[in-house]
Amino acid sequence: MAKTRNNSYKKKAGQAPGTLIYTGEKQSQKLFIEAFDYDENQYTENELSNIEEAFGFKHTNSKTWINLNGLNHIKDIETLGKHYNLHHLVLEDVVNISQRPKIDEYEDYLFIVLKMLYYDKGETIVSEQVSFILGKSYVLTFQESEGDVFESVRDRIRMAKGRVRYMESDYLLYALIDAVVDYYFNIIEVLGDKIEDFETEIFSGNASEDTSKNIQDLKREILRVRRAIFPLREVISRIEKNDNELIQQKTITYFRDIYDHLIQVSENIDIYREMIWSLMDMYMTTISNKMNEVMKVLTIMASIFIPLTFIAGIYGMNFDYIPELQYKYSYFILWGVMIVLFVGMLIYFKKKKWL
Amino acid sequence: MAKTRNNSYKKKAGQAPGTLIYTGEKQSQKLFIEAFDYDENQYTENELSNIEEAFGFKHTNSKTWINLNGLNHIKDIETLGKHYNLHHLVLEDVVNISQRPKIDEYEDYLFIVLKMLYYDKGETIVSEQVSFILGKSYVLTFQESEGDVFESVRDRIRMAKGRVRYMESDYLLYALIDAVVDYYFNIIEVLGDKIEDFETEIFSGNASEDTSKNIQDLKREILRVRRAIFPLREVISRIEKNDNELIQQKTITYFRDIYDHLIQVSENIDIYREMIWSLMDMYMTTISNKMNEVMKVLTIMASIFIPLTFIAGIYGMNFDYIPELQYKYSYFILWGVMIVLFVGMLIYFKKKKWL
Amino acid sequence: MAKTRNNSYKKKAGQAPGTLIYTGEKQSQKLFIEAFDYDENQYTENELSNIEEAFGFKHTNSKTWINLNGLNHIKDIETLGKHYNLHHLVLEDVVNISQRPKIDEYEDYLFIVLKMLYYDKGETIVSEQVSFILGKSYVLTFQESEGDVFESVRDRIRMAKGRVRYMESDYLLYALIDAVVDYYFNIIEVLGDKIEDFETEIFSGNASEDTSKNIQDLKREILRVRRAIFPLREVISRIEKNDNELIQQKTITYFRDIYDHLIQVSENIDIYREMIWSLMDMYMTTISNKMNEVMKVLTIMASIFIPLTFIAGIYGMNFDYIPELQYKYSYFILWGVMIVLFVGMLIYFKKKKWL
Amino acid sequence: MAKTRNNSYKKKAGQAPGTLIYTGEKQSQKLFIEAFDYDENQYTENELSNIEEAFGFKHTNSKTWINLNGLNHIKDIETLGKHYNLHHLVLEDVVNISQRPKIDEYEDYLFIVLKMLYYDKGETIVSEQVSFILGKSYVLTFQESEGDVFESVRDRIRMAKGRVRYMESDYLLYALIDAVVDYYFNIIEVLGDKIEDFETEIFSGNASEDTSKNIQDLKREILRVRRAIFPLREVISRIEKNDNELIQQKTITYFRDIYDHLIQVSENIDIYREMIWSLMDMYMTTISNKMNEVMKVLTIMASIFIPLTFIAGIYGMNFDYIPELQYKYSYFILWGVMIVLFVGMLIYFKKKKWL
Amino acid sequence: MAKTRNNSYKKKAGQAPGTLIYTGEKQSQKLFIEAFDYDENQYTENELSNIEEAFGFKHTNSKTWINLNGLNHIKDIETLGKHYNLHHLVLEDVVNISQRPKIDEYEDYLFIVLKMLYYDKGETIVSEQVSFILGKSYVLTFQESEGDVFESVRDRIRMAKGRVRYMESDYLLYALIDAVVDYYFNIIEVLGDKIEDFETEIFSGNASEDTSKNIQDLKREILRVRRAIFPLREVISRIEKNDNELIQQKTITYFRDIYDHLIQVSENIDIYREMIWSLMDMYMTTISNKMNEVMKVLTIMASIFIPLTFIAGIYGMNFDYIPELQYKYSYFILWGVMIVLFVGMLIYFKKKKWL
Repeated sequence: MAKTRNNSYKKKAGQAPGTLIYTGEKQSQKLFIEAFDYDENQYTENELSNIEEAFGFKHTNSKTWINLNGLNHIKDIETLGKHYNLHHLVLEDVVNISQRPKIDEYEDYLFIVLKMLYYDKGETIVSEQVSFILGKSYVLTFQESEGDVFESVRDRIRMAKGRVRYMESDYLLYALIDAVVDYYFNIIEVLGDKIEDFETEIFSGNASEDTSKNIQDLKREILRVRRAIFPLREVISRIEKNDNELIQQKTITYFRDIYDHLIQVSENIDIYREMIWSLMDMYMTTISNKMNEVMKVLTIMASIFIPLTFIAGIYGMNFDYIPELQYKYSYFILWGVMIVLFVGMLIYFKKKKWL
Repeated sequence: MAKTRNNSYKKKAGQAPGTLIYTGEKQSQKLFIEAFDYDENQYTENELSNIEEAFGFKHTNSKTWINLNGLNHIKDIETLGKHYNLHHLVLEDVVNISQRPKIDEYEDYLFIVLKMLYYDKGETIVSEQVSFILGKSYVLTFQESEGDVFESVRDRIRMAKGRVRYMESDYLLYALIDAVVDYYFNIIEVLGDKIEDFETEIFSGNASEDTSKNIQDLKREILRVRRAIFPLREVISRIEKNDNELIQQKTITYFRDIYDHLIQVSENIDIYREMIWSLMDMYMTTISNKMNEVMKVLTIMASIFIPLTFIAGIYGMNFDYIPELQYKYSYFILWGVMIVLFVGMLIYFKKKKWL
Repeated sequence: MAKTRNNSYKKKAGQAPGTLIYTGEKQSQKLFIEAFDYDENQYTENELSNIEEAFGFKHTNSKTWINLNGLNHIKDIETLGKHYNLHHLVLEDVVNISQRPKIDEYEDYLFIVLKMLYYDKGETIVSEQVSFILGKSYVLTFQESEGDVFESVRDRIRMAKGRVRYMESDYLLYALIDAVVDYYFNIIEVLGDKIEDFETEIFSGNASEDTSKNIQDLKREILRVRRAIFPLREVISRIEKNDNELIQQKTITYFRDIYDHLIQVSENIDIYREMIWSLMDMYMTTISNKMNEVMKVLTIMASIFIPLTFIAGIYGMNFDYIPELQYKYSYFILWGVMIVLFVGMLIYFKKKKWL
Repeated sequence: MAKTRNNSYKKKAGQAPGTLIYTGEKQSQKLFIEAFDYDENQYTENELSNIEEAFGFKHTNSKTWINLNGLNHIKDIETLGKHYNLHHLVLEDVVNISQRPKIDEYEDYLFIVLKMLYYDKGETIVSEQVSFILGKSYVLTFQESEGDVFESVRDRIRMAKGRVRYMESDYLLYALIDAVVDYYFNIIEVLGDKIEDFETEIFSGNASEDTSKNIQDLKREILRVRRAIFPLREVISRIEKNDNELIQQKTITYFRDIYDHLIQVSENIDIYREMIWSLMDMYMTTISNKMNEVMKVLTIMASIFIPLTFIAGIYGMNFDYIPELQYKYSYFILWGVMIVLFVGMLIYFKKKKWL
Repeated sequence: MAKTRNNSYKKKAGQAPGTLIYTGEKQSQKLFIEAFDYDENQYTENELSNIEEAFGFKHTNSKTWINLNGLNHIKDIETLGKHYNLHHLVLEDVVNISQRPKIDEYEDYLFIVLKMLYYDKGETIVSEQVSFILGKSYVLTFQESEGDVFESVRDRIRMAKGRVRYMESDYLLYALIDAVVDYYFNIIEVLGDKIEDFETEIFSGNASEDTSKNIQDLKREILRVRRAIFPLREVISRIEKNDNELIQQKTITYFRDIYDHLIQVSENIDIYREMIWSLMDMYMTTISNKMNEVMKVLTIMASIFIPLTFIAGIYGMNFDYIPELQYKYSYFILWGVMIVLFVGMLIYFKKKKWL
């Protein structure tokens, strides 16, 4: 992810501002456009084969959701943008995937960017930028590639489940953002599990030298998730306080609900951050404890056998006159002395709780 | 608790917003409803056998407290909510036990969620979500399961002790929240005792390798308590500054009192947090001190006996001509030299304060 | 102090709010009431034998200071409070000694609580709660027990020194609080000395294993002092910005002076906090340095004598044919070689600055 | 850079305020002045040979960009400043290169200072102060020396690419600042790469003793970059909120874009800072791990061979009566015992995972 | 400095507020008063022999600067204060040298206190309190003792250099404060140099056990400087935002300039603080690295010679039947084996990069 981001900077630097450049990596992405057009009584769902088909929905009375996958198709996005009257800076932000979550108000539409996070097969977090245009009776969404978290919203439109069909396009916007935020809970849940795994690993004494690296990786992952999620609070808070007529009073209660969820997610992330710092502390502690144990073994072995070896060395000397050497039971007495020393040492270390 | 929370997320994700789903674990909880109806002169206390019995209390002039235990009974809660005119988002929050303490104002009632903390037998902190609906002449409370901290309030109603009987329903709300906050003091008291125990353990040299784990567990517990308590300050502060007619001017003084208590609790928690960090520091210090001691024993043993062994080795050599070997008193002189060396070493280490 | 606080919580929990309960430990404290009544020209000073004698002072034109020691005399305090028209929550706060410094405005009086800190004989900080009631022409003070910091104020009233006699009761309040804050400077001075002592102890190499514990104790003491002093800034700041007619414009300048002092004290405390953290760092460093020294001694001894012992071992072997053994000067040559090795090692370690 | 800064202080201290003194180091810099004069239809580009040639552009209807390199030419700057009516404090700030990014509003122009950061050949960050004067139809820029990041802007003027030719001078200001901010992305990209390099170095076990020094250097570099970039956010934010008529409404959207970029850069820098702290942690961990490994080798060697040597020492004693010595197979049995001990030790250490 | 401060507290405690007490240590300081009286065309400079001579300047049309050194001369200061109508709290603050930088507005004058920092011969920072009274056409300054940083201002008055002679007294105030702030740059420059010296010391391996103490001393010095400088920002900011007629609009630009300088100084100080923390980290790292090196030497020596000594011990045994002993070339073969072992070990340690 870091690499991608860096490259995306490079592609931009030195360009005239306002130039549309897709800064992501999925250059060969096929263009995919789907359109939902619905009101309380009916709905239609189409995959559009070219961008011009999307123009007709702008002025229908029914609500429309046009979802476009494939930000590398600059031309089509520009065409769509021109038809829907979007500012060129908006289009630029749509295709520049290194945006920070933000909201910009324009005369007849709202522009919202956020990060959709989900787990790709495995445990890699995929961070995909999604842009929303909320107009009078339509919502446009732009995604980098296929695969999203909106399936439940599609189902609700199809089956007329919940309120989505009889409320306005701002409710659709809410439903889509809510789907994104719901997935944030999945993200932090897995992060929490990972932290618990590390703890178990460290306390069970199985921490290897890679552990410290893996903890760092997790810390960075949390930093990245944090960076994707935290600014969104500000965005939602601004929607709440908004007096733009595109957002109806009765929908604001729903956005407040999202806001509450985001605060919950944020608090969890900050707790995880603190726990990660603690993990490093604990890891250091286990290393020190292990070293302590190593040192104890060394000290015990050396403290017991070095004096004994010294005694053996004494009676290995070749002096002509060492009286003990001639005495018949010297050897056995010496063994006795040594065993006493040995046992004494053991008792001493036992008392020091080193054994 | 962590596990529960995670699961609660899972149950929600992908659902249409506004769907009532109980996210806790106590699925088999029996429904329990009690109703207190009282004014200055009389009171009645009933256990209701079905939810419809609770409808009558809405428009009585007397004050009513309806307490419902068992959030898994979605149907009944929905019925009650419909009768008391509650917004479906409120009902959703009531049964979703992963709420953050918060207050929401609606046209004719206030909705407050907070966390009731108490010790289950033993030292496990039970965190149970309690929701309050404050209406004109009634208070509704929703608890996940049996067991609460409201017994003293019930007694005061029964015995007409204190002001609760002749003041309005907002005072009842105050009394209930005050009971919750009073128990927070118990919580932090036990946390404080635990910290002191750890300190004693560490300084008495009894810290085992589990100590670091236990400290981490305590740190996490404090983080969780903090998370349950801190947002409540904001809630109470908003009640204080409120100009809602449901909260009377003279009751606000009492809420200010709760606010003061919450600040006290919060300050204690933050002091505990800092002390926990210090505990880890101290633990590291004791580990280092222990290692120092181990190293000293090793160094003393090795420094004394390795040179002596060398000397013994010298006279164990088999050279044909070593003059000292023939001299009669060599062996005894050597012992003298060795003892002098030994004692010299001891004095040296004594002076270095290693002994 | 911690223990006291905890107990004080316990006594309260589960009580009806508004019940007067003394939460301190000095149950057997004798009641002591003194009254100063003065104006520009005269003053009287009495020890009152019962609480009713204090009632007469309420409506005199002269200024009155009534000081009551002994918070366990609930009854008397209640009687006094009723006469001076105090809210029952105020009385409750007066006798509950776990208050945080705060100010509450009531219709015809101000209620201020703060912590008086002074050194008992020895170096233990005594923290005593003092409550002030500022009325039109009187100040009431409530202390837990005998012994306070107000002697200089009494003297000024007695001797008509300074402005206290010809200014209003708000100036008396100022003089009393100023006396309390002046003693805070003593507190932080002693704390500063303690920190310096620890530094000297650590750097002189005399730090024992208790040092870490003592530093922690000091850290906690600073945290407690901080907690007693910091909220007072807010209190004084609110007095300053007050438009209550009880505080005259010309007295506000004096409260601003107190505020300046509190900022100074607070800054010192925060500097001490940072220095305490540094002390722990330094202590860890000295431990590491000591271990380094221990290791060096071991390494030097082992590195010098292990190789020499090996050489001696070689010529202690019993092979039938070891040519060197027969040569007459072998033994002396070997000694030469060993001495060269020994000196070489010494030079090597000297160069490494281990000696 | 630090040295330069310090010197620059020295040159100033003790001078009358308002004296123009160039505080940088490039004293021998040649004066270079270039002027772009353009409108929608045409443009001219000249290198001016003396400062007076720049006067004519002030009142043309076309837009003008005058860029001056060489702040040591105090005289010329003073002359230009007088003609363009600049406050002497502005001129003083232009030549004093230790400015913090800031914006000052004057009656008929805006004065903006910021830091241009780019990589000199190699990886040294060059920090050069650039001052902007935005007037009605002109922009003046002052740089310390040759070499800047504005080449892309020059090209856009020359080729009438983008909007720069038909928009006002405030858009030119935007384009220039945007070019500076674009290069910040390059800076943080390289910083990010360096951090990754350090991580690889540390985890691959190649960290030398210089690593810690290099990490510190990087930390300081990040601090410096931070200090150059962070205040600029405030500057741009003030431009955005400006109601100065020099900045047109439609240009403000573009400045908001810069602001978004600066927030992105700032967030990255703060993440890098946190990662740098982690790097030091990890480095400490690897040191401890290495020491652990060293100790294990020592302990294994000593624990295996010291007891064996002791046994050999036993049978090297010269007692007249040691029964085992006479038995024919003693030597071989002893070897057996020793091998068993050796293997036993190996198994023991294997089980402890030290091998 | 710490000692002085502490004493200064003591002298005050228990005194009636408003009593003038000099809290510094320079009791025997001679009184020195100088008066500058100037306007655009002329100036006079006198050393006054008694305080009454200063009274005449109050109502002249020309601007006057009266500078008084020697705060122990309470009487004279009181006399001067009475004549210039100063509040007794102001006079008290003038002679109490433990003030925090602050500004107080009175009806017809401004009172400003700040800390003048300069290096006494050597590298000790002298912190002297300077008080400023800005009146309609005069500035009074009070210093503790001789020696100040105002020489350049005196010169500018004498030589009519810069604007000081033809602008009002507020500009004189600016010039004096500017001189003080300019010296702050010298202070932080020397602090920066000290930090660099420590770094060099630590990285060159010359850090002794005193290094940690010296770093702590520097840290405390920085904390003190911080405390002297930081509050001044607030003071200057309040002058800027002032609508007091004593400060003219055109002078405010100059104060904004001082403000910018203070921000620069503050930022540097905060960077130094962070670098000091890093220094301690690095110092710990070097200690650990050294210990690592010591351990490696020990391990290498022990690992090589302990096994060899064991082998020698084997053939020093006195078993009657050890076949190798009789073989003629055994001794030489054994040497070969030992050399192979020795070299093998060296290669092993080389590969582990311990050599």
